[in-house]
Amino acid sequence: LPQWNCACVNCAAARRGKIRPQTQSGLAISVDENRWLLVNASPDLRSQIESCPDLHPETNGPLRNSPIREVILTNADFDHVLGLFQLRERNEPLPVHCTPAVRDTLQRSLRIDSLLAGFCGIEWRDLPSVTMKPLNTNGSKNGIAYRAIELPAQPPRYAALPVSNEGQSVALEFLDQQNGKRLLVAPDVAAITPELESALQKADAVLFDGTFWSDDELRRIDPTTRKASEMGHLPIRQGSLEALRNLPARHRIYLHINNTNPIFQPGSPERLEVEQAGIVIGEDGLEFEL
Amino acid sequence: LPQWNCACVNCAAARRGKIRPQTQSGLAISVDENRWLLVNASPDLRSQIESCPDLHPETNGPLRNSPIREVILTNADFDHVLGLFQLRERNEPLPVHCTPAVRDTLQRSLRIDSLLAGFCGIEWRDLPSVTMKPLNTNGSKNGIAYRAIELPAQPPRYAALPVSNEGQSVALEFLDQQNGKRLLVAPDVAAITPELESALQKADAVLFDGTFWSDDELRRIDPTTRKASEMGHLPIRQGSLEALRNLPARHRIYLHINNTNPIFQPGSPERLEVEQAGIVIGEDGLEFEL
Repeated sequence: LPQWNCACVNCAAARRGKIRPQTQSGLAISVDENRWLLVNASPDLRSQIESCPDLHPETNGPLRNSPIREVILTNADFDHVLGLFQLRERNEPLPVHCTPAVRDTLQRSLRIDSLLAGFCGIEWRDLPSVTMKPLNTNGSKNGIAYRAIELPAQPPRYAALPVSNEGQSVALEFLDQQNGKRLLVAPDVAAITPELESALQKADAVLFDGTFWSDDELRRIDPTTRKASEMGHLPIRQGSLEALRNLPARHRIYLHINNTNPIFQPGSPERLEVEQAGIVIGEDGLEFEL
Repeated sequence: LPQWNCACVNCAAARRGKIRPQTQSGLAISVDENRWLLVNASPDLRSQIESCPDLHPETNGPLRNSPIREVILTNADFDHVLGLFQLRERNEPLPVHCTPAVRDTLQRSLRIDSLLAGFCGIEWRDLPSVTMKPLNTNGSKNGIAYRAIELPAQPPRYAALPVSNEGQSVALEFLDQQNGKRLLVAPDVAAITPELESALQKADAVLFDGTFWSDDELRRIDPTTRKASEMGHLPIRQGSLEALRNLPARHRIYLHINNTNPIFQPGSPERLEVEQAGIVIGEDGLEFEL
């Protein structure tokens, strides 16, 4: 927010300084505050890294260094993977964790292996599903266990080759192995499956798909576009708001919020309704500890 | 500047607020201040557009609109083309002007046509060489004539398929057809060819490759890297500085300056030498009129 070519109420307000601009969705997780993993790599990654001192290289380290040790992808959308190209100056191959379907899309449709081969290259890791597994980087554990929860999805719009819908989108469940706290990250939720519902109930923090307020949000301003549900997003109204309202999680946060979403507007009824449900509207620089 | 994983003197100083950070190289040109063309599309394009009000959509225009009408590429490097993906929400195909060699690299190695087909798509235009031609967008002239000047070059590092070196890099000469003023844009200059030298002599403004101060700039901080000349850049010292010093152009500006270049440091002898030659060190937001 704002989107470069969008003149909607929110984008215009952001340019007038009435709404705080936001970069595209992404997050960084750490147990020791030294080694960080990224969940998704947005096109805004370079500026996101610079605005977050924890993600800067060590001043006294080697000429090229970074606390960013790996990337986990929830799907293969441009908005989640273009940032991988910005990490290409890395000295070593970049570990990227994703489902076989997302890897297949990135390898065959985006041909990312070939494109990055002359730079850092990618070291692919399969995401554990079913049960939690420790997250290892270069053979050493970092105190996090994780697993993917598969969600209904479609392949990204750029995928020209026939690819399966299965495994194209996941939620991620993280476990801090020291304190037993659980984080659930779900930026693209078409529907709350029983497996996702069960993880939502156990989570201490939930970062959830806040893309659209209503199913017809985009259609109301542009009749040629699809509904939220057709784009793989459960809207907040008559959707995720009720699902999140009574969860026991201490942190319930909307992320991946589209530039058109009225919850961005200070004082809007939609924003108030979300806030009154105890849900935080995610924004750049938001930090919390589990 | 800073580069996300770089701990060099400049990057560290930029993070401490001692040097002003800079986004990656790119520029926008207009005759009427309503229709703009981009020269190259950097990965930082989204933030560059937002920081430049002339490039914002019209508030009273259609929901999606932009004064950016087309993009001209000087080569196919990631740093010049990744921004094309950020323009994908455009309503109509994006006109992209480049050489047949750059187009071939983008089509065959990056497969950009296929990747953007589900979004705006690209409308390819060949760059005129030899003689100036009017720049037309959607059939209407916009008061600019232009041509490409071919330079010695290599294909980009991501180009896995065998591609020709010929036409992989150009300088661009623009002519304002109303006032007859000429602008020369040359961000990647391996050598000053006779054709480029002739255009330099005629230009009213020159934007020139300031990537490296010295041929061994990167090698001095990292012995595993290549020399400036091996990377297709004439260094400033014992290179472009002498070539630009006595040009008649009113504006002589370095752009495409690498994060390691000592001319970024306020008060450095290198910066002073450039400034004493009457050459401006390009920076974010720099504007001038011909």
